[in-house]
Amino acid sequence: MKRRDFLRGGSLALGGLALTPIISKGQVLPLAPSSKRAKNIIFMVSDGMSSGTLAMADLYSRRKFGRPSHWISLYEQSQVQRGLMDMASLNSIVTDSAAASSSWGGGQRVNNGSLNISPSGEEYLPILQKFKKSGKKVGCVTTVPITHATPAGFSVATKSRNSQEQIASLYSTLGFDVLLGGGSKYFDASFRDDKTDMYQKFRTKGYSVVKSKEELLKASVHYPLLGIFETDGLPYSIDHNSSSLLSTNVPTLAEMSVKAIEQMQSHPQGFVLQIEAGKVDWAAHGNDIGGLLYDQLAFDEAVGKVLDFAMKDGNTLVVITSDHGNANPGIIYGKEADKNFDRVHHFTHSNEWILQGITPSTTKNQIIERVAEANAAIRITDEEAAQLLSYYKEASMENGVYNARHLPFKLLAEIQKQYISVGWISMDHSADYTEIAMYGPGSENLKPFIRNTDIHEMLLVAAHVENKF
Amino acid sequence: MKRRDFLRGGSLALGGLALTPIISKGQVLPLAPSSKRAKNIIFMVSDGMSSGTLAMADLYSRRKFGRPSHWISLYEQSQVQRGLMDMASLNSIVTDSAAASSSWGGGQRVNNGSLNISPSGEEYLPILQKFKKSGKKVGCVTTVPITHATPAGFSVATKSRNSQEQIASLYSTLGFDVLLGGGSKYFDASFRDDKTDMYQKFRTKGYSVVKSKEELLKASVHYPLLGIFETDGLPYSIDHNSSSLLSTNVPTLAEMSVKAIEQMQSHPQGFVLQIEAGKVDWAAHGNDIGGLLYDQLAFDEAVGKVLDFAMKDGNTLVVITSDHGNANPGIIYGKEADKNFDRVHHFTHSNEWILQGITPSTTKNQIIERVAEANAAIRITDEEAAQLLSYYKEASMENGVYNARHLPFKLLAEIQKQYISVGWISMDHSADYTEIAMYGPGSENLKPFIRNTDIHEMLLVAAHVENKF
Repeated sequence: MKRRDFLRGGSLALGGLALTPIISKGQVLPLAPSSKRAKNIIFMVSDGMSSGTLAMADLYSRRKFGRPSHWISLYEQSQVQRGLMDMASLNSIVTDSAAASSSWGGGQRVNNGSLNISPSGEEYLPILQKFKKSGKKVGCVTTVPITHATPAGFSVATKSRNSQEQIASLYSTLGFDVLLGGGSKYFDASFRDDKTDMYQKFRTKGYSVVKSKEELLKASVHYPLLGIFETDGLPYSIDHNSSSLLSTNVPTLAEMSVKAIEQMQSHPQGFVLQIEAGKVDWAAHGNDIGGLLYDQLAFDEAVGKVLDFAMKDGNTLVVITSDHGNANPGIIYGKEADKNFDRVHHFTHSNEWILQGITPSTTKNQIIERVAEANAAIRITDEEAAQLLSYYKEASMENGVYNARHLPFKLLAEIQKQYISVGWISMDHSADYTEIAMYGPGSENLKPFIRNTDIHEMLLVAAHVENKF
Repeated sequence: MKRRDFLRGGSLALGGLALTPIISKGQVLPLAPSSKRAKNIIFMVSDGMSSGTLAMADLYSRRKFGRPSHWISLYEQSQVQRGLMDMASLNSIVTDSAAASSSWGGGQRVNNGSLNISPSGEEYLPILQKFKKSGKKVGCVTTVPITHATPAGFSVATKSRNSQEQIASLYSTLGFDVLLGGGSKYFDASFRDDKTDMYQKFRTKGYSVVKSKEELLKASVHYPLLGIFETDGLPYSIDHNSSSLLSTNVPTLAEMSVKAIEQMQSHPQGFVLQIEAGKVDWAAHGNDIGGLLYDQLAFDEAVGKVLDFAMKDGNTLVVITSDHGNANPGIIYGKEADKNFDRVHHFTHSNEWILQGITPSTTKNQIIERVAEANAAIRITDEEAAQLLSYYKEASMENGVYNARHLPFKLLAEIQKQYISVGWISMDHSADYTEIAMYGPGSENLKPFIRNTDIHEMLLVAAHVENKF
């Protein structure tokens, strides 16, 4: 008997208390009865957060602000269950974000790049559709396009994560309650291949459509809400202040999260919300320490807001995790390690900002000044500036997942390494087991080591929603 | 009132049940009463194990042998408490092994390089001396010199970890029950500056002195035991079979651990044993994947043996942890990631073995063949062989903590990266928080996040030993 058949076969007893088995690889792992139903679930993902990223953000917070990160503070106060999670996809021990989110969202491992669809074409119903059918409000919040892999893995089944226009179209049919993030190029008629105005489609279905932080904060909580704040991903948190335009127009992850909760919290049947810090992953792909740490801290700010809500509410399961490691950054031993790492306290721009401002006609001195402006007065050498400049002048190029312009992210990180004592193993995902923490009703079922696919059933069981779809 | 004064002031109530506060950075963290006294404590350290090392060893085990590592298996079966641990030293967020072991052993942070001695010269009594005074048998087992930082941090107070001859002399005065590892150059009169025959000193004090696996296995359990099996560190596990001499003469970490337990287990007052996989750290310093994974698996084999004992015994607290990250290795995303990583299944020699066998007169073809012999028939290119050879011919050199001969470890790891999909951030320690797991009586006091110095008090409390020394 297949697992799906077993679960569908009615063996899943759900009453006032959930007591249900998860079967994975031949093991029976009975879930303990939950003393309480999770009316709401908030699932928080720092995308591509290696364990070193979690540690560095906490160290940064302690050394700059004198307090731990919210995430680690939950550990210090023994307020959460925690585990490690094996995030392998169907075809690799190193997952991509689509297969990772699908493993949670559909409860099945799929090949990298796929969203809740098996190699032979079998579709797995995503968990937000299940929760929506069960009567809950559902939504997603992210700092990358709302059509990107992590929100999509909770929402839709489609062969390729890259079909983001199609994913936006699918979203318009789902009746979800909150969708906030970037990616107007998948909604705006002028960008889309099919020239459809997706914003109008959503409005027709009764959505409030907002495109700036101001509009978001003012939006009524009585209508479903679509908020798209950038063409592609949102700017890095560290760059929010580099233009007055941006700081006015783009909400933080915490602001989007709070708004999403406000929109859904009074629903009698409760809600399920996914919150993703997607640009933590993009920054790791760019070995961009300022992008990485300030976005991890922005995620942590959202963790604080979510826990404030969950602690008052008392009926909310909060999951805090990552979908895979990325670049495994860490602070490296040395006499100057502390002083060097603390320089990041005063960084004001991402490496993306540095590199996008250089052209073939930039001088070495201008590069040195630009790095110093962004990186707390660190003055790179003439030779290092010349190396950077050579990428622009001689059409040498780096490739990378989010590096369409082939900018020298790797070289810049190598140059920075000696000044900030932070290193990276690569510019891509790693197979490290990810950290997972759970707070609230249902968290008692978290084992110290789980398989990614276990999450799907755990969420349904926590909410006392039968997996009958 | 200082913490030490507080604890010495008699506020520590210890009776049948321990109920005692740990004060750290202004916080009062009351330890829950232990339902049971830990008669024995086994403290296991995989030195320099990054979280990626733990994951890679588990993945290796699952993919090659079809079973999880013992460590992760304990998580899957919910048999242990687990936490993250902040291992910072007094003078840096990135610790060395001396300050790390001292933080546990003496309960105080000291500067990197020091062993249980403050910058102003205050000494902290190491925990194995406390337990010895309390009537227990105590001992250390390691794969590096027994005088090295990690065993020394539990045993002695001295200004510098580098004074290993002096540490060997101090050991001879402590009356410890088991000391097993490498480092004959600190015991053998012909190596020592002072020409003292430390072996003879130990024999005079009633020790059995053994120098081979055979002698170890035959040694009586009725006498204290000193076993030194190599001049410096023991050979990497992956190299154990590369010489018949070695495989006969050198015990595994599991064999040493079992013998140490046998020697001490019938003692009425119980025992405390530290077990260190020291060459996991050396391999990470060398970015040496074969050295690293096979020694991590040898550590895991010892974890299995220790848990076998502890589960039968029922009165033993087992701690399994690492003292800091090192090089943050991880398996990198890519189409060939799984196939590449699985090549390590068939590696037969460490990178140390490869590089030590090359001389300026080695040919490129010989280098290619040597790498292929060690690395499962991976054939590096002519150009890569030439790069390696240039280090020997042109007196270019790499430096490194355990690289006295300035061999090109970094270059070899960079070459291997494309064949095995494993990367490294550096050749030194990282500030990552370390993984800690606890099994048995006293483990219920482990919080999800702790400071390294908390361990000292936790061990004493678990054993119901008053900290009155």
